[in-house]
Amino acid sequence: MAEAITPRSKDYAQWYVDIVTHAKLADYSPVKGSMVIRPRGYAIWERMQSILDDLFKETGVQNAYFPLLIPQSFLEKEKEHVDGFSPEVAVVTHGGGAKLEEPLILRPTSETIIWSMYKKWIHSWRDLPLALNQWANVIRWEKRTRLFLRTTEFLWQEGHTAHATREEAQQRTLQMLEVYRHFAEDYLAMPVLTGIKSESEKFAGAEYTYSIEAMMQDKKALQAGTSHDLGQNFGNSFDVRYQTKEGTLESVWATSWGVSTRLIGGLIMTHSDDRGLVLPPKIAPIDVAIIPIFRSNNKAKVFEFAQRAQHDLKEHGLRVFFDNDESTNPGWKFAECELSGIPVRIELGERDIDAGQFVLVRRDTLEKETVAKDALVARIKEILVNMQADLYQKALTFRKENTYEFTDYAQMQHFFNETAGGFAQGLWCGSAQCESKVKNETKATIRNLPFSLNQHPHQGKCLICGEKASHKAVWGRSY
Amino acid sequence: MAEAITPRSKDYAQWYVDIVTHAKLADYSPVKGSMVIRPRGYAIWERMQSILDDLFKETGVQNAYFPLLIPQSFLEKEKEHVDGFSPEVAVVTHGGGAKLEEPLILRPTSETIIWSMYKKWIHSWRDLPLALNQWANVIRWEKRTRLFLRTTEFLWQEGHTAHATREEAQQRTLQMLEVYRHFAEDYLAMPVLTGIKSESEKFAGAEYTYSIEAMMQDKKALQAGTSHDLGQNFGNSFDVRYQTKEGTLESVWATSWGVSTRLIGGLIMTHSDDRGLVLPPKIAPIDVAIIPIFRSNNKAKVFEFAQRAQHDLKEHGLRVFFDNDESTNPGWKFAECELSGIPVRIELGERDIDAGQFVLVRRDTLEKETVAKDALVARIKEILVNMQADLYQKALTFRKENTYEFTDYAQMQHFFNETAGGFAQGLWCGSAQCESKVKNETKATIRNLPFSLNQHPHQGKCLICGEKASHKAVWGRSY
Repeated sequence: MAEAITPRSKDYAQWYVDIVTHAKLADYSPVKGSMVIRPRGYAIWERMQSILDDLFKETGVQNAYFPLLIPQSFLEKEKEHVDGFSPEVAVVTHGGGAKLEEPLILRPTSETIIWSMYKKWIHSWRDLPLALNQWANVIRWEKRTRLFLRTTEFLWQEGHTAHATREEAQQRTLQMLEVYRHFAEDYLAMPVLTGIKSESEKFAGAEYTYSIEAMMQDKKALQAGTSHDLGQNFGNSFDVRYQTKEGTLESVWATSWGVSTRLIGGLIMTHSDDRGLVLPPKIAPIDVAIIPIFRSNNKAKVFEFAQRAQHDLKEHGLRVFFDNDESTNPGWKFAECELSGIPVRIELGERDIDAGQFVLVRRDTLEKETVAKDALVARIKEILVNMQADLYQKALTFRKENTYEFTDYAQMQHFFNETAGGFAQGLWCGSAQCESKVKNETKATIRNLPFSLNQHPHQGKCLICGEKASHKAVWGRSY
Repeated sequence: MAEAITPRSKDYAQWYVDIVTHAKLADYSPVKGSMVIRPRGYAIWERMQSILDDLFKETGVQNAYFPLLIPQSFLEKEKEHVDGFSPEVAVVTHGGGAKLEEPLILRPTSETIIWSMYKKWIHSWRDLPLALNQWANVIRWEKRTRLFLRTTEFLWQEGHTAHATREEAQQRTLQMLEVYRHFAEDYLAMPVLTGIKSESEKFAGAEYTYSIEAMMQDKKALQAGTSHDLGQNFGNSFDVRYQTKEGTLESVWATSWGVSTRLIGGLIMTHSDDRGLVLPPKIAPIDVAIIPIFRSNNKAKVFEFAQRAQHDLKEHGLRVFFDNDESTNPGWKFAECELSGIPVRIELGERDIDAGQFVLVRRDTLEKETVAKDALVARIKEILVNMQADLYQKALTFRKENTYEFTDYAQMQHFFNETAGGFAQGLWCGSAQCESKVKNETKATIRNLPFSLNQHPHQGKCLICGEKASHKAVWGRSY
């Protein structure tokens, strides 16, 4: 570890960049706004993909792959969609040495190309529902970019389903939101607010957009995943109709939903500390590192014991890294383990071997303990379970401690403009005017209307304008 | 199965398109040359990815992800590389509503962007070797396209390694070629010739290109994977130097290697027949289909038995599909199984249940057999092993029967121009003139100089010009 990480207290934004670059998760590329995902960062993405892919398939989703290049005219078929995405597309004008007859855009999202294919594939109620997902790169021309959080090219999954009825599409939209909540909370240990977005924050082309929203350590919000009920907008725009059992023709109902490599940024900003990455065990590419402490005269003994431990741990399904590099010292290796977020490290020297024990250090708390040889596997598994639960609880407590209820707008303004901020919850009348007033005056936006706060209609007044309000919103400044 | 598949004997090219489209592996997209990979096709690609990814990682390769967009000037840094790829690039000229200062190309391959990053990451012998792979889409503007075999956008993996010495780069090049051979022969059941490409057929920017070459059922060749020894070409072009242990500065040695979704086309054309796909069990997404034969009065009994069988087979690690659709009849389902290449199907009716037996049909031979209930799992596993081996042997025999040795060029011309062709092997002087003469006069190209035919230097004469020849080449018309 050549360079030190800037402490969060000193410069949070620089701390984040330091973590990403020093832990070798990603790097800047020669093309502004495009990033390179390095092996350690990509290994986290692979874990995310593998878990999500299984969760999707359990709900009957199949994977497919649709083209990167989309005719420019397709974007224009859905009015709100084109308004939302036109400003951020990249355009291919030349191919194979010649100017193209029609320019092609690089997909910013794939509703249009996919619904042009659904038009070919969907004819009858027998063809429905159709639930496809793709793992792909997308391009959105962003002016201000940040590694993982906002880049011109990013990797994501996008699911696109087609249904015979409005109800079925609504159910699928909420089902996938629940998959995202489950993944965020139970794997990433990242508590999220699930809820519906406001009109002005919804996806361009959706009837309703739902999201999961997390709080980062700087108390800002991160939209970590979205699920859209697209109504019949794309069915109508692409003229996708199906014959019902009764023989009538109906327009098809749609959903789409996605999460991206942005989740890696969220993961970092939820758990990591000034020493480096902290990864929840369920998402960590490596569970345990074994660091041998040896001199030339006992190297053989220490290595043999370490290798036997590595073998045992692997046998029990743990992902183990034995750091047998002889050109670096143990202190350097300890720091590397901390930087790269390996949940448990074993510090193994001759004295421990002779005493029949192992020294374990848990990454998040840095607690050190000694465990007897025979208890090693069980104890490590226990630590991993505890660490997963503790990281979630810690993040949840942090969010709760930094969430305030407001009934007075002046107080909320003060909260965002004069304090370190957090989440503000309060009643909202539903008007875009109040929403944009808050945004202009505090830079805070409505993250969503959380289900948990809206299980029953509220009776009260909008905290901004004082008019009748029936929903409670959560505001925050966001990434 | 609505439409019949054109028989191979009638129109081989149409047979191939029919298989791909009727089995719903892929479809044409609205953008000429771009294809849509449908769930059944993508499931095959996922199997390929999963197997190859494990094989790569076993050799110490790590995955990463590099940007799609590459500055146009990068391509120009390596002279042969730019000559080879310039005619087929797609160019992005506008982004975010404005004209770009420098046009960006969509990666046709990623040597240039990756070596621009290696320049940042490689400084010392400690940083070597570096072995990264990415799973990505690439774009090459192709005039004539065919589903899977040649498309403007395709999915592939590209490995890029950096080494301290020429010998290490050479070893890695051959190691990855061997991984490809192993994968093609032992998983895809596709026999391949491994060998070195001629100067004129090598990768633009490589010192040496090696390939695996397979024979399709129409006796044409398919280049199924390549591994390139790039020498110091990219190290020099991107000024990537490392400090040796002795303190001197040396240019870095490179390799790259890739296989693509083209392999799906090769897989189809190696094994499939006029009824549909035939998939080697190791690559088939589903091993066994259970087709219930029932009337309304015994449906419950048949379904219950079928579900128990499904459960048993799954318990033993088999991938099972129970076709419980009630809107189609068994005959239609049998045809679907054959079309989609499921290796074994179980035809299960009440009579079989009462007799305590199952009727099995093996996809490649269509052999039907009856097996006692208790022997089901073991027998299916046996059939899968046999089928895997038999498909390989059948393809190998086909290649051998259609490979001829020539010492007379007139005979070889006749072979390619007047007969159904195949592979021609013979001595070659190594000159580009003889190579292009054959190409012009027969449309056949040198596939490679197979290792198996060149274990010792030959002493003899070039079959084209009669000059001294030391290598044996294999010619074929190719995809």
